[in-house]
Amino acid sequence: MRVIDDPTQLRSLALGWRRDGRVVALVPTMGALHAGHLSLVRRARLDSTHLIVSIFVNPLQFGPHDDWARYPRNLEADLALLEPEGVEVVFVPTAERMYAIGARTRVVVDEIGDVLEGARRPGHFQGVATVVQKLFNLSLPNFAYFGEKDAQQLAVLTRMARDLDTGIGIVAVPTVRESDGLALSSRNAYLSAAERSAAPCLWRALSLGARLYREHRTGDPAVLLGLMREVVEREPLAHLDYLELVDPATFSAPGPLAVGAVRIGSTRLIDNLRLDHPSGGFPPPPGARAVGRQARAG
Amino acid sequence: MRVIDDPTQLRSLALGWRRDGRVVALVPTMGALHAGHLSLVRRARLDSTHLIVSIFVNPLQFGPHDDWARYPRNLEADLALLEPEGVEVVFVPTAERMYAIGARTRVVVDEIGDVLEGARRPGHFQGVATVVQKLFNLSLPNFAYFGEKDAQQLAVLTRMARDLDTGIGIVAVPTVRESDGLALSSRNAYLSAAERSAAPCLWRALSLGARLYREHRTGDPAVLLGLMREVVEREPLAHLDYLELVDPATFSAPGPLAVGAVRIGSTRLIDNLRLDHPSGGFPPPPGARAVGRQARAG
Repeated sequence: MRVIDDPTQLRSLALGWRRDGRVVALVPTMGALHAGHLSLVRRARLDSTHLIVSIFVNPLQFGPHDDWARYPRNLEADLALLEPEGVEVVFVPTAERMYAIGARTRVVVDEIGDVLEGARRPGHFQGVATVVQKLFNLSLPNFAYFGEKDAQQLAVLTRMARDLDTGIGIVAVPTVRESDGLALSSRNAYLSAAERSAAPCLWRALSLGARLYREHRTGDPAVLLGLMREVVEREPLAHLDYLELVDPATFSAPGPLAVGAVRIGSTRLIDNLRLDHPSGGFPPPPGARAVGRQARAG
Repeated sequence: MRVIDDPTQLRSLALGWRRDGRVVALVPTMGALHAGHLSLVRRARLDSTHLIVSIFVNPLQFGPHDDWARYPRNLEADLALLEPEGVEVVFVPTAERMYAIGARTRVVVDEIGDVLEGARRPGHFQGVATVVQKLFNLSLPNFAYFGEKDAQQLAVLTRMARDLDTGIGIVAVPTVRESDGLALSSRNAYLSAAERSAAPCLWRALSLGARLYREHRTGDPAVLLGLMREVVEREPLAHLDYLELVDPATFSAPGPLAVGAVRIGSTRLIDNLRLDHPSGGFPPPPGARAVGRQARAG
């Protein structure tokens, strides 16, 4: 496992692999790795011959009031977690290496990136789309892996990858949860013990929604959402930011994807669930599994 | 010479070439080819083993009042011109193939793309940057070639290619001119005989600027610009849109690049000249010529 901070060195390695017909997978992360990230890494490992994990707390996707400065960073622990996972390269650039003085280019995904998280964090998805397009151009992957937990990010990047003709398959990996349903997130580390007990209220609301949807097939999203929101509102430590039903690809309402954000103290957590098939259900891009089998056989 | 309209077919060809270690050059055009384009093609041919020319009148870079509908199109003549030039692939996609229903992604280059042409043609450089990023991802070139005549486009795309870590060298090719100095442009075809006689006034203004700059080394851009603008204003058929002195990389004023736009009848023409070294002077990207030599030797 090589740790690289030089973007041009990463590209020349990746170019060599692609020239040799290897299958390259990219798992972009902001570090503070947990079992959710490892699930991405293990899925990516299955699909590829060469696996790149990037660790970069991208300043471009944080607003002035966001938690960029206090976002958890622990490179040593991250590398220790990745060491046994069969990763070829961990790419750990500095902000100075990633954003040259005078850089002025943004990748914008309209509409999908403007609502919900995008409305509350102006510029967030532009920052995400821009850094991911840069990582794509540096890593030259066949496939890139993103968690379903960040469903809107997944929709933005799937759209971007297709619109810009990247030829890169975007693979959605199911959310990993604690035993009480709380979605794993690096931001869970911010929670006090009392806040941690309160945090699963969003998951409970989503689960209730899925059950009501399955059992009653209610056609009225407003009724369903009202019942779901009540679950969060009953939790004194939680403040509901939003809970909506949207289309998982366009993020326009209504649709079968329940997405929500809550604030617990000073920590903001997001989660989501497909009400129509709540076990998950973002389909893999065409060819992903086939290539994976090929790579394992070869 | 193969003519291809399918983006995925183009990428799979390009990927094969890059896998074999070939050097791929891309010349993006909107067709209506003239000697200026052929100069791009010949320069690209020298630097590469495999040459792709794209012909696409990109609707995204035309505003509602621009000349998209009447922009000259003559594919047969274009292909006849390219036939003897050693082009491997001419890529001629339809707008439907290039822009899927639901496409929402834009590449924006701030500041450089907002002034002069960008201010007069809102969305123009976003359209250019977006389609060129798509063409980059489909053609996977080592180098891409653009005319110095469209100096602001060159600045926008040079910035974009660097900011998004494309690893693609942007090569500027000197403007080809008629004997009276008029820069070759597909839009010259719109001019009546009288308008054609009036059209070189912009070039005369630029040349005067270069001469004054060299002879007097005047430190006052306002004085210099005043004298240059007078040349255009003396031409009854010409209406000066702008004439400015800007930095050739950032397009902020002041700088040694004189850029101008005139309207002659219903035709809008642009041109530019480096006053500090008026023979041209956009340097090649590092490595471009070295790779060219290597490719020719191999």
